[in-house]
Amino acid sequence: MHRDNVKVVDCTIRDGGLMNDSNFDIETVRAVYKACCEANIDVCELGYRNSKEMFDPAEFGPWRFCDEEDLRKATDGIGPGRTKVAVMMDAHKSNPDDLLPASESVVDIVRVATYTKDINQAVRTCNAATELGYETTINIMAITHVHMPDVEACLDQAEEETQASAVYIVDSFGYMYMDQLHYMVAKYQMHLKTKDVGVHFHNNQQLAFANTMEGIVNGATWADGTMNGLGRGAGNCTTELLMSFLKNPDLDILPVLDCIGKYITPLKKDIEWGYHIPYFITGILNQHPQSAIRQMSIEDEAEKHDYVTFYTMVDE
Amino acid sequence: MHRDNVKVVDCTIRDGGLMNDSNFDIETVRAVYKACCEANIDVCELGYRNSKEMFDPAEFGPWRFCDEEDLRKATDGIGPGRTKVAVMMDAHKSNPDDLLPASESVVDIVRVATYTKDINQAVRTCNAATELGYETTINIMAITHVHMPDVEACLDQAEEETQASAVYIVDSFGYMYMDQLHYMVAKYQMHLKTKDVGVHFHNNQQLAFANTMEGIVNGATWADGTMNGLGRGAGNCTTELLMSFLKNPDLDILPVLDCIGKYITPLKKDIEWGYHIPYFITGILNQHPQSAIRQMSIEDEAEKHDYVTFYTMVDE
Repeated sequence: MHRDNVKVVDCTIRDGGLMNDSNFDIETVRAVYKACCEANIDVCELGYRNSKEMFDPAEFGPWRFCDEEDLRKATDGIGPGRTKVAVMMDAHKSNPDDLLPASESVVDIVRVATYTKDINQAVRTCNAATELGYETTINIMAITHVHMPDVEACLDQAEEETQASAVYIVDSFGYMYMDQLHYMVAKYQMHLKTKDVGVHFHNNQQLAFANTMEGIVNGATWADGTMNGLGRGAGNCTTELLMSFLKNPDLDILPVLDCIGKYITPLKKDIEWGYHIPYFITGILNQHPQSAIRQMSIEDEAEKHDYVTFYTMVDE
Repeated sequence: MHRDNVKVVDCTIRDGGLMNDSNFDIETVRAVYKACCEANIDVCELGYRNSKEMFDPAEFGPWRFCDEEDLRKATDGIGPGRTKVAVMMDAHKSNPDDLLPASESVVDIVRVATYTKDINQAVRTCNAATELGYETTINIMAITHVHMPDVEACLDQAEEETQASAVYIVDSFGYMYMDQLHYMVAKYQMHLKTKDVGVHFHNNQQLAFANTMEGIVNGATWADGTMNGLGRGAGNCTTELLMSFLKNPDLDILPVLDCIGKYITPLKKDIEWGYHIPYFITGILNQHPQSAIRQMSIEDEAEKHDYVTFYTMVDE
């Protein structure tokens, strides 16, 4: 069978930007966007539209802000075919005033990322985007650290108070097993009568793709991936694995493989993403990867690979 | 829940030996064995007991042959606690005459690896080992390349003609999805009335651990892993992920993490195992990883990462 009801969302530049402060050169961003268009990927997320009052433009690259001018540089003369452009707004780090009317913008979809505690801000941002003409999603982060009644309240708010197309399960810490995911998908479906379920997973336990598949098999219809898994820490479900699984004849994997070989794999010289023991440790302990990212940045090899000390430190 | 009925088999030295012609130094082998003993891992596989007539000892290291003298050097003064020592014999590349009586050997378990076509030789080797006092398993390789009636015939022979404790599903090419694995586990269980089911998976599609979990959830009770996934090509289910999943309080993960940090991670300087696009490509195409291993060995970076040419070549 093939699954043509699943929207493939490539967020290589957005999630990968968490590993390089969103400092991709323009050639890489154009190559990723072009590959998405040629591959017939549904959505290409080109970065964050976060606030310059909360992130210093002297420290962060253009894809943390996605100014319209930069987005035009990234997309001019390419596609778009059926590929829509998305940006992500962190509910607590963005300002709806930074959105133009959709008709004047390169952006088609605004994805609002939120912790459960910030859901009211997320709803406000989401509705502001809807009024300006954008399609929207709400991405509930760090889902394994949240009291379940809070998740359910968020889902009810998203359902009743927004026009979001989809609400995402985001396993920020890479903690979930497949049976735990089943539980969450069922919970989402119970509360979201008129919206789709999305899935975005991290690879701390090498389960990002497996969980994405399981989510899809159980009814999720928006699925995030990044090329070669590029993303914070252990990285993400890979776009190429997701595309291969869907077996949708409209999708063409070769432009994605070409882009990975020329632009993504070479980044490994400077950025160490993917499965590594420190990320495994924070994953199985259901913790934010920040401590593991620090551990991975240690220069002394023996200290960097002293996993027992690291485990003991984070398991306090 | 925890699963104390599952035997953890660490085959770091055996499967990892496919990446370095079994040329581990004695310190590494002793460290892996010691970690297994301290971690209370059930079985530590220290290499192949293959024939010196088929592998040249000038080309291959000691762990391709596992002479008793070398095994004693690897294990003297350590453990064993509950950890048993295993070796693997390839049905078509080994000689049962190379086995001493079990009472005179360091080895407890002989695992016979076979293609379906070599099942008669595998049965003979397995029975020779049983007669000498060893516990045995039969590991059916390349299971996704085989006509199903041939698999069923192998299972019936293993069931009726041997005393093997377990028969393994080995996804040599890393091709299987979880639903295909369900099918295979059910098939094995139908034919194996008196024997356990074992699982050994490769990580071409980042599913080695997910499939191992699914196998266990569906009744497999022997599960293979290697430390940090070290193994041919894309590598294996990792021992640390497997241990963490089982949540068996008898298992101690810290000695394994210590060994990985000191002995396994440093091997990455010389051996490039794990998820890489060429292994992904042979995996989704259900092919032997040999072509991908050659692709990974190309020195010119642009040629090595020309995944489109590689894909087109192997998809003929």
